[in-house]
Amino acid sequence: MPSFVAEIADRLLAGSAPAVIGLDPRLDALPADLLPDGDPSERIVEFYRRTLPALAQHVPCVKPNIAFFERYGAAGFAAYEWTCRAARERGLLVIGDVKRGDIGSTASAYADGHFALADALTLHPYLGEDSVAPFLDACGVQGKSGAGGKAVFVLVRTSNPGARDFQDLELGSGRTLCDVVAEAVTRWGRELPFAEGYSPVGAVVGATWPSELERLRALLPHAWLLLPGVGAQGGTVEDLAPAFDSRGLGALVNQSRGVMQCFARDDGDWLARVEDAARTFAADCRRVATGERT
Amino acid sequence: MPSFVAEIADRLLAGSAPAVIGLDPRLDALPADLLPDGDPSERIVEFYRRTLPALAQHVPCVKPNIAFFERYGAAGFAAYEWTCRAARERGLLVIGDVKRGDIGSTASAYADGHFALADALTLHPYLGEDSVAPFLDACGVQGKSGAGGKAVFVLVRTSNPGARDFQDLELGSGRTLCDVVAEAVTRWGRELPFAEGYSPVGAVVGATWPSELERLRALLPHAWLLLPGVGAQGGTVEDLAPAFDSRGLGALVNQSRGVMQCFARDDGDWLARVEDAARTFAADCRRVATGERT
Repeated sequence: MPSFVAEIADRLLAGSAPAVIGLDPRLDALPADLLPDGDPSERIVEFYRRTLPALAQHVPCVKPNIAFFERYGAAGFAAYEWTCRAARERGLLVIGDVKRGDIGSTASAYADGHFALADALTLHPYLGEDSVAPFLDACGVQGKSGAGGKAVFVLVRTSNPGARDFQDLELGSGRTLCDVVAEAVTRWGRELPFAEGYSPVGAVVGATWPSELERLRALLPHAWLLLPGVGAQGGTVEDLAPAFDSRGLGALVNQSRGVMQCFARDDGDWLARVEDAARTFAADCRRVATGERT
Repeated sequence: MPSFVAEIADRLLAGSAPAVIGLDPRLDALPADLLPDGDPSERIVEFYRRTLPALAQHVPCVKPNIAFFERYGAAGFAAYEWTCRAARERGLLVIGDVKRGDIGSTASAYADGHFALADALTLHPYLGEDSVAPFLDACGVQGKSGAGGKAVFVLVRTSNPGARDFQDLELGSGRTLCDVVAEAVTRWGRELPFAEGYSPVGAVVGATWPSELERLRALLPHAWLLLPGVGAQGGTVEDLAPAFDSRGLGALVNQSRGVMQCFARDDGDWLARVEDAARTFAADCRRVATGERT
């Protein structure tokens, strides 16, 4: 299998939308008729068993956030494993939104466990380069064993209001903390195998801060940007045009609630609503990425 | 049950050591005769089933790092749950070393799931105050339902070499990033219920940086400091005296490998070695905390 960055570039150049759908299972937002007597992990699995085939028709990638799974303990963790596996079996690329970050020896344990489940992972930068290095080892050239070819998305500028608290702190040099993290992301990716101009070390940049986007794009010339925050958090796809290059590559827009919670819980046609929302979201992302204006 | 901060202060004032033993299960460091044919999670559970009673004789608190458990998927996660429960049944306080950090709605899911297992949690600061707030909600006054009374330890200055990469960045004001995070920790803890002068919002400060300790102690006057990095990572207990107040409160020293991997794998007396190492470590911590010098 090609590397994550080669595969995502190929799919986008072949017409796939630069769109990711976030899988954040909330029991109080599942369809009312979906195993109402099931335990949480059974209900979550059933929801994705029903929706993943529809999502795979419209987007190349999903992003399960493990918090909403491990909320239900070991059974929830098993539901996360099931969801990653089922998504990959449907041909979807999986970004495991795990936001891990620990010292080197511990980071190796996280990398081993989570890259077995997902094609790419989100990471915290606060502990510095040696905390990211074990994950970068898995982003190298793929060996015969199938290791390698993975990708990471390092948190640079997050989508929440509290992003300002530390990420915007001004350093003596006039740059902000997230600028320096962005420069580190560029450095960390430099020696790894690129595809279509992009390295396997990407960055999370919240779609809720369009005014930051051009500056961070310039600091991250070779990074895939993962852009969360569209929809419920207030970001709009239209504001994200500066994230894309002239071929429509370089960024992936994430939406979670706007697709996966777009229906009334008692709507018997909820699956059609999800598919409609995924189709519309994908079309919006494709249009903005390719520079078409409505 | 009293809050985490009330309970830890009471135990230390009654003579317990300010010592935490880290539980980082590595299969290649387990005793050779311990269920050699068992699967990873069975072997991990058996290791702690055998060692927790000995640890509970010498230290008030353990710190399982979930990375080494979730490395083995859902079964490993179940072993983490078992370990937390078994430790609490033995009267040990449990600091879940999960290093989570996500936007507010996701942070709530992490808080709900992980505070059901542990008395305190470690957290990443990079996403700012609203990412920490759902955890702080659980640190308030305990209600009749038993909610509340928890604690957090925010990563301020970590024990790894890469801590320098971002945590030491100088801000325009002449302070470093970790100083500003320390000040935020002080602010976040201010309105929560104190016990013996300490708030439930603590800080992780690596024992590998003794030269930073006095400055950070001053910026964190009301925070319990969790000090990892003693032993294999190069820190020594003797360097940590400035972390403690005159009553021997205010800090908890963590050691992992130096206790839990202190034996040769084929040593039939490995359990006695672990107990000896725990006893020695506890005595070292007690002596330094109370200002006795060897």
